[in-house]
Amino acid sequence: MTLPRRTHPRPLDITHGRIDLTHGGGGRAMAQLVDELFVAAFDNEALNQGNDQAEFVVPQGRMVMSTDGYVISPLFFPGGDIGSLAVHGTVNDVAMAGAVPHSLSAGFIIEEGFPLADLKRIVDSMAAASKAAGVPVVTGDTKVVEKGKGDGIFITTAGIGFVPPGVRISGDRARPGDAILISGTMGDHGVAVMSQRESLGFESAILSDSAALHTLVAAMVADCPGIRVLRDPTRGGLAATLNEIAAQSATGMVIDERAVPVKDAVRGACELLGLDPLYVANEGKLICICDAADADRLLAVMRAHPLGTDAARIGTCEADPHHFVRMKTAMGGTRVVDWLAGEQLPRIC
Amino acid sequence: MTLPRRTHPRPLDITHGRIDLTHGGGGRAMAQLVDELFVAAFDNEALNQGNDQAEFVVPQGRMVMSTDGYVISPLFFPGGDIGSLAVHGTVNDVAMAGAVPHSLSAGFIIEEGFPLADLKRIVDSMAAASKAAGVPVVTGDTKVVEKGKGDGIFITTAGIGFVPPGVRISGDRARPGDAILISGTMGDHGVAVMSQRESLGFESAILSDSAALHTLVAAMVADCPGIRVLRDPTRGGLAATLNEIAAQSATGMVIDERAVPVKDAVRGACELLGLDPLYVANEGKLICICDAADADRLLAVMRAHPLGTDAARIGTCEADPHHFVRMKTAMGGTRVVDWLAGEQLPRIC
Repeated sequence: MTLPRRTHPRPLDITHGRIDLTHGGGGRAMAQLVDELFVAAFDNEALNQGNDQAEFVVPQGRMVMSTDGYVISPLFFPGGDIGSLAVHGTVNDVAMAGAVPHSLSAGFIIEEGFPLADLKRIVDSMAAASKAAGVPVVTGDTKVVEKGKGDGIFITTAGIGFVPPGVRISGDRARPGDAILISGTMGDHGVAVMSQRESLGFESAILSDSAALHTLVAAMVADCPGIRVLRDPTRGGLAATLNEIAAQSATGMVIDERAVPVKDAVRGACELLGLDPLYVANEGKLICICDAADADRLLAVMRAHPLGTDAARIGTCEADPHHFVRMKTAMGGTRVVDWLAGEQLPRIC
Repeated sequence: MTLPRRTHPRPLDITHGRIDLTHGGGGRAMAQLVDELFVAAFDNEALNQGNDQAEFVVPQGRMVMSTDGYVISPLFFPGGDIGSLAVHGTVNDVAMAGAVPHSLSAGFIIEEGFPLADLKRIVDSMAAASKAAGVPVVTGDTKVVEKGKGDGIFITTAGIGFVPPGVRISGDRARPGDAILISGTMGDHGVAVMSQRESLGFESAILSDSAALHTLVAAMVADCPGIRVLRDPTRGGLAATLNEIAAQSATGMVIDERAVPVKDAVRGACELLGLDPLYVANEGKLICICDAADADRLLAVMRAHPLGTDAARIGTCEADPHHFVRMKTAMGGTRVVDWLAGEQLPRIC
């Protein structure tokens, strides 16, 4: 079914035009924005139905649903932008259940005066990420707020997906003795955004790792359906996410600082900025907790995937009534990896 | 499965506390906000899994997915608030496919400094609306932006639901001769919000009609699975929504001004404010287009439901290559009901 395109007297002036309040008003202006910008970019059968909801057939099964708001500043950063991030982040939240992502929704909250050229760049990037991931944006919504009541653009995506039979992945399933793996280097996203924000020109450009991890997850789950926990260390980084899982699973963890891969450029930038890479957000990495017996095989599967080439085993779960995450430091000591109140870098995603 | 609640040294100070950037930072402060405010209010099995995604079993079938962002100002208005509205609006978008709503997600974008007391009031209202509708909020996300970069709180919900077998409702299915019904009075929501915004004290309070329409839809679909179009006339009101459907179905429409129910108080307020009730947003009303032969029976079903007591047949679809919506005025003439560029009242939902 194809939406019979409404006709508009003049096409949108993408080059010089700006969002105004009529673009969120449900009338002709919004219809034109939806037709010429959103539907044109996302172009898929469900969206083209042109209704306030998208319809599609699903099989019987275990579905997961997730949502994330994206308020990252700046909107464009080395290695990505808010549009691609809004696809990758939610695809990843769905995938972290071991699920195959099926569809996304997208809600845009745009500040009056926002350049149409920037909006088109973001929407095109979002559409490209969605197509590359094979997860269509099937329905959406646009709201406009007055100048000074927003910050350019906020995007909230929701995603659904299906968990393959036999897979049961949840943050409460880690147990003492389990191996803790990560899929690659820590801190790339946060440092890339921070360097852009502070206009720091590092000698070697640091790119965000923003990526959709569902094909990596599919390979891992196919090899080892018994994976216990998957989670992507976004806000708060590896430290916050391990603490979250430790609390949820009521277990302790011990990790080896030397085993945690961090790019030299990221480590250097972190030193300069006073950041700890363990607490810096990632947008294309995952933590995997599995039976220790499965660890080597899973690591091989991860390393064979383009998004897991730097995968490493970084530690082990252990019995601990305090559910501490401890770290053997490079210096040979051991310290508790504390759970901070917030994030070192606000609006990192 | 129940989330093992994390322990927090002191409970949130709901009475005097305010949102700060740590509440969106993915660390301890956010975990506490999620535990003590969101999970406590929404309390359901899927959410209590405590993961970044919720898992539930779905049957094979035709699913619909919808999303809407809510940026209404003011946040609290006669007859509702942004929390209940964020449930009703998305439940309705799912229901307008004839679907039975299944689950909701909720993404919050909160401005630094927002009072926790207001947040709790909104979340409690949202939870009450979700429970009353029987549609759980299964997963969510919280982001915080700096003071001056938002406007209190924005909420984006997404919803999924299932279309009963044999039902095929879509905006492109209206055809000449079909009857056009509405479920009740027009303009209540917009006028209620406007009166609050302008601090107008009308003699008789005008309440928003904000309501979840899925049980009304279920009754209608059970009686008449052949309904062609359902849509809720929100932004842009009846006028914009009829024009949308007319364009999508490539048909004309003629409506009778005298048949459109408008409350006296709303009519009076509209005159005072210079608004046309046909263009004012509704949040608990629907337009139904059906075979003319089904109209009387459907009207009876609608009137028997508490949310359809004022249901009326307001017009008929007709062949028209221009897809105009025409109106027989109370004065006896006929005029085209134009499709405005935007909405008379910005941020009405």
